[in-house]
Amino acid sequence: MSRQHTARVSSPTEQRNPRTADIDLLPTLDVLRLLNAEDREVPKAVERALPDLARAVDLGTAALRAGGRVHYVGAGTSGRLAVLDAAELVPTFNVPEDWFVAHQAGGPAALRTPVENAEDDADTAEREMRTAVGPDDFVLGLAASGRTPYVLSALRTARQLGAATALVTANPGATGTAADVLITVDTGAEPITGSTRMKAGTAQKLVLTSLSTTIMVRLGRTYSNLMVSMLASNAKLRGRTLTVLHEATGESDEVCAAALREADGDLKTALVHLLSGADPGRAAAALAVSGGQVRAALAALTDPA
Amino acid sequence: MSRQHTARVSSPTEQRNPRTADIDLLPTLDVLRLLNAEDREVPKAVERALPDLARAVDLGTAALRAGGRVHYVGAGTSGRLAVLDAAELVPTFNVPEDWFVAHQAGGPAALRTPVENAEDDADTAEREMRTAVGPDDFVLGLAASGRTPYVLSALRTARQLGAATALVTANPGATGTAADVLITVDTGAEPITGSTRMKAGTAQKLVLTSLSTTIMVRLGRTYSNLMVSMLASNAKLRGRTLTVLHEATGESDEVCAAALREADGDLKTALVHLLSGADPGRAAAALAVSGGQVRAALAALTDPA
Repeated sequence: MSRQHTARVSSPTEQRNPRTADIDLLPTLDVLRLLNAEDREVPKAVERALPDLARAVDLGTAALRAGGRVHYVGAGTSGRLAVLDAAELVPTFNVPEDWFVAHQAGGPAALRTPVENAEDDADTAEREMRTAVGPDDFVLGLAASGRTPYVLSALRTARQLGAATALVTANPGATGTAADVLITVDTGAEPITGSTRMKAGTAQKLVLTSLSTTIMVRLGRTYSNLMVSMLASNAKLRGRTLTVLHEATGESDEVCAAALREADGDLKTALVHLLSGADPGRAAAALAVSGGQVRAALAALTDPA
Repeated sequence: MSRQHTARVSSPTEQRNPRTADIDLLPTLDVLRLLNAEDREVPKAVERALPDLARAVDLGTAALRAGGRVHYVGAGTSGRLAVLDAAELVPTFNVPEDWFVAHQAGGPAALRTPVENAEDDADTAEREMRTAVGPDDFVLGLAASGRTPYVLSALRTARQLGAATALVTANPGATGTAADVLITVDTGAEPITGSTRMKAGTAQKLVLTSLSTTIMVRLGRTYSNLMVSMLASNAKLRGRTLTVLHEATGESDEVCAAALREADGDLKTALVHLLSGADPGRAAAALAVSGGQVRAALAALTDPA
């Protein structure tokens, strides 16, 4: 490799993978086995970044507790995965649509069709942050190479605005000077050279899903491993709500249905009512003073001192 | 668990995960460790489905070779991941936008905002398939539960139209009678009950990325593990093209740049020219009769008998 070439290739995600040099000569099943062997390393690489990811979870949780928002910023695959995660949180955990905001280089059109050079557009990123971000917010940038101008510009601007920031990257050489927390998931050379939609993309998906799920757990949107922030507003949701209530309490469907009716369809209230024995009014009040946390409401009702 | 309850919960993806019952009582880092331990099982579950995935790859490759298209069909997370994969193939492998078509329940709006009951809309799925699908096509449905009416209706219709079909599901109980190939990735109970955006979603991402990448390898869009279907149509792409040419041939940047100029910016032609010694005209002709496959063109030029 010539020196001028080495200078050009600086992220491991852009280097050639010696294990897949013959990938185009193999039978289909062997190609898939090769890719699968690479995929297995991704969760292990994420594991090494968990302490940094935990700091990001705490920053995101603090932002939402303070009335701020969580912003994701990415270009290409990173941006699409960010949009996907933000969109999922609304139906999954019944959160308001503006709690998690995804900013994708090139805007919504780039979801389906690539927008040329959007990832280099540092000015647009700065403008978007100045419009959308406040000092109580948390901004998570995603950039496999760690160098995407759109993402780094957004993080720099967000810091200037007083927001907490983190960068998710697959490049251990990324300095991350633009972010408070650097989450490096070193997924190495891709099976197809430079195709960061592969291992780096999977790592981003795992990081985003784990981050947002754990923030939801921290904010009391689950009781045990059950999603409890649900309002039985239609037949389908009523069915799902009854299932959760049954799982959490072991009570019969009849008892659960009655509790849900008494709680005006609010799952958490019905749950605290059934688990504590307190009537629905007291259950709702205990939830209100506990910030919507079922475990805290139960503790308050069981031990009022 | 009551009998009526058991009847309601029939997919492992909807069952409670005994390993995460205390997830809401743990410190942040321990929550993340729990999720990571679950994530590690996903590529292993995918591995067990690789023989079926290989059949799907061959069906998709055959469809594109015959002038047909590959369709993805999904609702919710499945649909979003499908849109994401289809969008990535255009810039990554320089394929025409209509080679991979993603059909998401609820349409493009559902990418960012859930569309209520769209996953139950079997009629729309049937209509979409009748408009979009022909007998040379391959249709891949994605449904974690294996039961999504939008997806199953699309697969049934696609089969009636003579298209090849496959279903990706996380439910080993799914019958898949609507598809030629059943790809079961048994990711088990989710860390948060019923949250199929987690492990089942990661499995879908791995399946889609592997499937489309392997189809691209089969169609000769790579040489070794390098993406070679590139036209140096602007400065940035010219830089990337030169890097690939250098990696594949070991020649200096000057030699690579000259070869690229002589090949009118076509990377594959420049590559075959440099590797075989044949002039760019003969290299282009050899590629044309080899269906664009670099290895086949090289073999034809080296051994013309």
